[in-house]
Amino acid sequence: MRLSEISELLGTVLEGNPDLEIARLNKIEDALNNEISFLHNEKYFPQIDTTEAGAVIVPSNFKTDRDISLLKAENPYATFTKLLIFMNPEKPLVKSGINKLTEIDNSVQIDENPAIGAFVSIGENTRIGKNVVIMSNVSIDRDVTIGDNVLIYSNVSIRNGSVIGNNVILQNNCVIGSDGFGFAMQNDSQYGKIPQVGIVILEDNVEIGANTVVDRATLGSTIISKGTKLDNLIQVAHNVKIGSNTVIAAQTGISGSTKIGNNCMIGGQVGFVGHITVGNNVMIGAQAGVNGNVKEGSVVTGTPVRDMTKQRKIDASLSRVPDMIYDIKDLKKAVKALEEKSN
Amino acid sequence: MRLSEISELLGTVLEGNPDLEIARLNKIEDALNNEISFLHNEKYFPQIDTTEAGAVIVPSNFKTDRDISLLKAENPYATFTKLLIFMNPEKPLVKSGINKLTEIDNSVQIDENPAIGAFVSIGENTRIGKNVVIMSNVSIDRDVTIGDNVLIYSNVSIRNGSVIGNNVILQNNCVIGSDGFGFAMQNDSQYGKIPQVGIVILEDNVEIGANTVVDRATLGSTIISKGTKLDNLIQVAHNVKIGSNTVIAAQTGISGSTKIGNNCMIGGQVGFVGHITVGNNVMIGAQAGVNGNVKEGSVVTGTPVRDMTKQRKIDASLSRVPDMIYDIKDLKKAVKALEEKSN
Amino acid sequence: MRLSEISELLGTVLEGNPDLEIARLNKIEDALNNEISFLHNEKYFPQIDTTEAGAVIVPSNFKTDRDISLLKAENPYATFTKLLIFMNPEKPLVKSGINKLTEIDNSVQIDENPAIGAFVSIGENTRIGKNVVIMSNVSIDRDVTIGDNVLIYSNVSIRNGSVIGNNVILQNNCVIGSDGFGFAMQNDSQYGKIPQVGIVILEDNVEIGANTVVDRATLGSTIISKGTKLDNLIQVAHNVKIGSNTVIAAQTGISGSTKIGNNCMIGGQVGFVGHITVGNNVMIGAQAGVNGNVKEGSVVTGTPVRDMTKQRKIDASLSRVPDMIYDIKDLKKAVKALEEKSN
Repeated sequence: MRLSEISELLGTVLEGNPDLEIARLNKIEDALNNEISFLHNEKYFPQIDTTEAGAVIVPSNFKTDRDISLLKAENPYATFTKLLIFMNPEKPLVKSGINKLTEIDNSVQIDENPAIGAFVSIGENTRIGKNVVIMSNVSIDRDVTIGDNVLIYSNVSIRNGSVIGNNVILQNNCVIGSDGFGFAMQNDSQYGKIPQVGIVILEDNVEIGANTVVDRATLGSTIISKGTKLDNLIQVAHNVKIGSNTVIAAQTGISGSTKIGNNCMIGGQVGFVGHITVGNNVMIGAQAGVNGNVKEGSVVTGTPVRDMTKQRKIDASLSRVPDMIYDIKDLKKAVKALEEKSN
Repeated sequence: MRLSEISELLGTVLEGNPDLEIARLNKIEDALNNEISFLHNEKYFPQIDTTEAGAVIVPSNFKTDRDISLLKAENPYATFTKLLIFMNPEKPLVKSGINKLTEIDNSVQIDENPAIGAFVSIGENTRIGKNVVIMSNVSIDRDVTIGDNVLIYSNVSIRNGSVIGNNVILQNNCVIGSDGFGFAMQNDSQYGKIPQVGIVILEDNVEIGANTVVDRATLGSTIISKGTKLDNLIQVAHNVKIGSNTVIAAQTGISGSTKIGNNCMIGGQVGFVGHITVGNNVMIGAQAGVNGNVKEGSVVTGTPVRDMTKQRKIDASLSRVPDMIYDIKDLKKAVKALEEKSN
Repeated sequence: MRLSEISELLGTVLEGNPDLEIARLNKIEDALNNEISFLHNEKYFPQIDTTEAGAVIVPSNFKTDRDISLLKAENPYATFTKLLIFMNPEKPLVKSGINKLTEIDNSVQIDENPAIGAFVSIGENTRIGKNVVIMSNVSIDRDVTIGDNVLIYSNVSIRNGSVIGNNVILQNNCVIGSDGFGFAMQNDSQYGKIPQVGIVILEDNVEIGANTVVDRATLGSTIISKGTKLDNLIQVAHNVKIGSNTVIAAQTGISGSTKIGNNCMIGGQVGFVGHITVGNNVMIGAQAGVNGNVKEGSVVTGTPVRDMTKQRKIDASLSRVPDMIYDIKDLKKAVKALEEKSN
């Protein structure tokens, strides 16, 4: 594909050789002279001097002394994504229609154009929207509602009563609607199980990572709101509410009844205690331990969480502590000597 | 249902309006005037003043100035649970009998009243007790023993030789009996696999969370004792022994051959090194790093673990460390000046 | 089996009773007088005085005053492993051949001697080597390549395009090739999905633990090199490269595009930020937070990571910090008094 054709497709401003033939996309550090790449984050701008890419998608105000073909875009990352989709047309994941080796209850309602793979089981009264893709070995229990254009990868488990919106993507082996972790000490000093009779609601455009678990509510609903994206191996406990357009990295765990706001960015391996509220637009560093409410717009990290700048200062200072013990000992001795002398 | 009927059912003492019609249960902060809730933890007692619940189950010695119907119980949480079960009769999870789309070896023995879903595979010589429910896409290997009244959710994997007691619940996609992580450096500087020939034993009334993994022993058994409950995404390594009535929150990891006592409460994302012993009645805070033995009755947290009160003091003091560096510098200067002056 | 026969089988030097009858292997602390055990790690050598084992495999230069039968070997652990394999001949995991209750596309090529269980689904153009064992409920998508002697346990998901080498072992419910976590903020303030068109490559002799996730690359490949072993519940993000003969313990998470070297040993629950490089022969302690490049041969731990000896000193010193605050206060007062006196 000629660079001029690509530029036209993407609506970018071309500076350089319109006749350059581009074979495919690649990362800036690996790209060859028949490949196109992009630069979005300022941190990586210096790579313009070393890349062997034939062309690079860059921000509109990007400048370089190097003689290299550029496509200028307002949002280089989104523009690159558009090209990526165009140049990698998806092969169908599973054959159109419903595989014969499935177990689908007679009461199940499935709208037009399904693609359902082998060994899929769907329980009573479940309703499934149109254009839904369900890969093999998926188990969907009774009374589940699934919207349109949903994509469910293999070995996913969806428990009874779950409500799943439109355009939701569930990565492999994730679990939606497992029991919350609720037990009450009985009079015989044994734990008795608290029935978990609530449900899970995943709103439109949510994505759930591989092996992530979203527990059903004890009563009411565990809710993940519109456009929120969860990475792999995340734990979402009963009655948690997560706002919209929030992204959470892998292996983070959110304890019961905690509320997280909209547009948050949460690192990996973070832990949240239960029954707290985290405001909108909060950023939380990886491995943080969130032990209380976090105000809207905060940028925090550490265990327990503190303002990120403050925590970084503490981290930097800790290597001094062993020496400080000796310093204080020496100071005490010196002060004592001075005191004795002055008496 | 009238409040007087509910009180009679639960064996509680009613103070208030016996004719109140209760439609359902709800959490104290969400309940409406035709709903019943409960208060168990003192921390939440003040919510009696703001709740819109029609009635509240409270401890026997609970007092309030507010005019609200109360049901007094010795153990409000357990009493509420009893009502929850009564008012939410379970719909069957899977049809009674054995689905035809299963692969069950001829040598398998299944006692009366099974409910086994589609795409379940059960290997040679496995024995299954009575009233067992096995949801779809569960894989049970050869030589497994499963007790009575066991409930296994979809996509669970149970490996050969595992022994599972009565009333055990396995949440979706958990793994029982995968290989322990054991490798020996060979003379060719490659890792050779140590065969993992031991088994897993889950005693009666154990519950295992979604996507949790319990590895088989290298030799002998990995054991989880009676009544112990594991949350989601937990790692239990080879030859670990966990006592009875211990609860462990999500994403905790226990390294090989470590022993944990009875009646412990362990937070989420805790890590245990291998080959250590944790006594009975121990409490461990979330994200702790347990790097050595822990004595019976200890309450610890932090990495490495310390007494909880001590750790909280350290946490509170750390924000002072950056300033302490300057303080010590200033003190050294001042002491030096004094010393010079005094000479 | 007589001890002399065992010694001959293993090629060890026998000191003690050649006629001793050995029934089985056991751990040194549990072994009885008709059982054989081993001692490899010096830390456990004192157990030679208390073990009830009939015989013990020990290093060639091992010495004891106790009268107990010994088998001397260069590498006791590897020698014990050899005996373990000999005395525990494996029963077949799944019947030879291909189960009828499978869904295998006509275009799939399977080499000689497969053992494929029930409810296995294999997509278009996938190629499978010889002597491959695939347990029940495994889902393998289209365009996958699987080498010889591969062992795949139940409920594993392998996504399209994955390349899996010879002798690879995939423990239950792990996921190979799920989407990387990549989203770009669109002009409408919603996250748009970046297509993940790369693949996963697992080289020969790799083992992947239960419920571990290896994400596909955005572009190019996520690579785990020859002989590397991953424990359970690990997260490997898109475009990560892990070298050969590296071992990683459970619940560790590696963020996107990070490179880890050969022969590394990485503890459990470690977190790596993205886009960093960890050299060869690095050791990283459990729960560490790796926030930057790590040089070849380093031994580090803590969050953020530091040299292990240094971090241990800091850990030991932290309990003094609360008192140091008072010490500094006292010192300031004392110095002030001295200064006033001296004026």
